[in-house]
Amino acid sequence: MSETDYDIQPQTKMVRGPKRASYDRETVHRIIDEAIICHVSTVLDGRPVMIPTAHWRVGEQFYIHGSSKNRVLGAIADGAEACICITHLDGLVMARSAFHHSANYRSVVIYGKARVMEDDTAKMEQSAVFVEKLAKGRWDTIRHPNKQELKATMFLEFDMEAVSAKIRTGDPVDDEEDYALPVWAGVLPCRTVWDAPIDDSRLDRSLLADATSA
Amino acid sequence: MSETDYDIQPQTKMVRGPKRASYDRETVHRIIDEAIICHVSTVLDGRPVMIPTAHWRVGEQFYIHGSSKNRVLGAIADGAEACICITHLDGLVMARSAFHHSANYRSVVIYGKARVMEDDTAKMEQSAVFVEKLAKGRWDTIRHPNKQELKATMFLEFDMEAVSAKIRTGDPVDDEEDYALPVWAGVLPCRTVWDAPIDDSRLDRSLLADATSA
Repeated sequence: MSETDYDIQPQTKMVRGPKRASYDRETVHRIIDEAIICHVSTVLDGRPVMIPTAHWRVGEQFYIHGSSKNRVLGAIADGAEACICITHLDGLVMARSAFHHSANYRSVVIYGKARVMEDDTAKMEQSAVFVEKLAKGRWDTIRHPNKQELKATMFLEFDMEAVSAKIRTGDPVDDEEDYALPVWAGVLPCRTVWDAPIDDSRLDRSLLADATSA
Repeated sequence: MSETDYDIQPQTKMVRGPKRASYDRETVHRIIDEAIICHVSTVLDGRPVMIPTAHWRVGEQFYIHGSSKNRVLGAIADGAEACICITHLDGLVMARSAFHHSANYRSVVIYGKARVMEDDTAKMEQSAVFVEKLAKGRWDTIRHPNKQELKATMFLEFDMEAVSAKIRTGDPVDDEEDYALPVWAGVLPCRTVWDAPIDDSRLDRSLLADATSA
């Protein structure tokens, strides 16, 4: 545990699988930044609700945004605690016994309440950070949000304090006697790939200064 | 709306973006079956909690499993309602304005309480279904769970009743006047790919009847 780690909180203390736990900031940041979407859950009228949504990070602040009318975001805006999970599935771990089948993954969980961003300048800044995360250099080329659009968009800002990562990598771990079984074992690795950009069917290439795409 | 659709429930009625909603069983099944992992949230001591976990489906039953000691699964086993989300990100939708940036995705949300499976035969059957989902034909080649392993594993079964899908596909939709802007617009498609299997470093190929892998 380094002094730059996140403090372990009651909520983020790993009871099971502590060897897979990490509180290292750089590890957490990397998992968050590599992902486009997270899952955000909260409690609304005593019941669990969840949405998948895009996210981004600036230092130790974590951001999500969406329609001002979204009921999950609205509940969090009204003060409900959120539990946010970012997950990368890296592979299936195929063991010699059914029981030891597992997955290689990297995940982060963030607990916390959010601040609703009210200042248009700050919202504009975060819009830029988000668009630049999706495609570097794009912000200066697109139309920026107008006053109505900013108003229609809710930005929620979380302090990253109750944060933990959980990571599994590598081979299956079988019971010693099972290694003698005549069955293939190993990892089926998976990853996300980005294919060639697809032009909008209404794209007019003559409008573009050069033929570059995103 | 076809007569085979899921009934729209108070929880699954889409208030926003109803054009993206689907209650079609086949659509929902396909989204679920194509995914390896889902996110499961519930309420524990009044607060939201969430885990990523693997899932599978048989007809209108949805299954997750994990350690009998897992606190999120335990809360659901004790009767807490769950909200489960399965999400495929299919691409980033790059519009001409920041505001109309979006994502192409397919997601399913399931609300419900679960039954804890207690019967070892039924748990064994579902273990087989799950392993066969991961790698067809594998169940007959591996060591099956013993009594202790079955006991250590909690299986939760959900009736798929409060279920909805949400899907976005295709081009960005810009404000009419923005189509004249000199900026590239379109979709950056992404998908999950499976790379070549990686042998367990302790794999002894001489044990295998043939040289096939998973």
